Amino acid sequence: MGTEERRERLRDELVRLAEETVAERGLPGLKARDLAARAGCAVGAIYTAFPDMDALILAVNARTLRRFEAFIARREGAPGEPAGRLVHLAVSYLAFAAEHPLLWRALFQHRLAEEKAPPDWYMVEQVRLFSYIEEPLAEMRPELKGRERPLLARTLFSAVHGIVSLGLDEKLGAVPEPVLRAQVETVVEAMGRGLMRGGRS
Amino acid sequence: MGTEERRERLRDELVRLAEETVAERGLPGLKARDLAARAGCAVGAIYTAFPDMDALILAVNARTLRRFEAFIARREGAPGEPAGRLVHLAVSYLAFAAEHPLLWRALFQHRLAEEKAPPDWYMVEQVRLFSYIEEPLAEMRPELKGRERPLLARTLFSAVHGIVSLGLDEKLGAVPEPVLRAQVETVVEAMGRGLMRGGRS
Repeated sequence: MGTEERRERLRDELVRLAEETVAERGLPGLKARDLAARAGCAVGAIYTAFPDMDALILAVNARTLRRFEAFIARREGAPGEPAGRLVHLAVSYLAFAAEHPLLWRALFQHRLAEEKAPPDWYMVEQVRLFSYIEEPLAEMRPELKGRERPLLARTLFSAVHGIVSLGLDEKLGAVPEPVLRAQVETVVEAMGRGLMRGGRS
Repeated sequence: MGTEERRERLRDELVRLAEETVAERGLPGLKARDLAARAGCAVGAIYTAFPDMDALILAVNARTLRRFEAFIARREGAPGEPAGRLVHLAVSYLAFAAEHPLLWRALFQHRLAEEKAPPDWYMVEQVRLFSYIEEPLAEMRPELKGRERPLLARTLFSAVHGIVSLGLDEKLGAVPEPVLRAQVETVVEAMGRGLMRGGRS
């Protein structure tokens, strides 16, 4: 086995173990020292596989994004009309967040060092997920052009993320998941209706 | 000056200085030791004025909530019809967050120790702010009863918070404030239209 192949294996193993740790203890519970112990390697070996812990965390988060994409694909019963598909996506997002709370939270907890933007490959993963929202929007608001549709998709995502995030966080007092789901449905349905009939974007 | 009066003065002074620190450096930059140095008192004196740092931070956050309430009151030109008032509130929230980013962020960064709910007086401050959203909702959806209206108000707040929060955080790539404001307007207008015409809640 060549050096590159060994490094590749170590990389996969570290991402898998880091993901387990984040799922169990949350992102703040992920430490290079513990991870090395878990992987049975020296701390320094982590840095032969990844330039830094940031890169490792991004790899874990990218797996979570792909896991969410598979989760959407598995959930059947998305209605045919576009506003209903938006509601279905939003409810799936809540279900995923409730099922993998710590992996999901890590997507937003991780802050890169000041001035450092996420690498292009990570942005591509993110953008691919937004395209699921853009697709019904394209039917609902065919007049949107250029950057308008991706921007609106991102805004709708942020709105749903806010509801899910503050709802699950219990920041404003606990909301049981079925109640939260009904709220997501109500508000996304209303947004959908408003966007279909509405004027400006 | 009696003991109680001195303690009251120290309390006010500490909240004022802690607020300055949070506004400059963010909540993670607030340390008891630095605060004591800034106030010219012993670290132990902080704990004669407040049971713990959590209580001090809650006092700072409560001031931010009242500051936001004053900010809404100062902003004129809220339209008469209820959906327009919702948009106006949402845009005010964005403007406030952009003007006081670190004080605003502290409202959501602060996590009480596990199992500890915020004290009643703090919840009362929060609930009073939600009533600004409930008021137009009462006109838009008079059929909502019991807990339905406060719950929907909270959900609408969470949606707007999500847009503002992810927009200002630049988590998903930077969005200039005027663009973000137009997005808030579009989505809250759509929600308003959808809620007015819509069915279920």
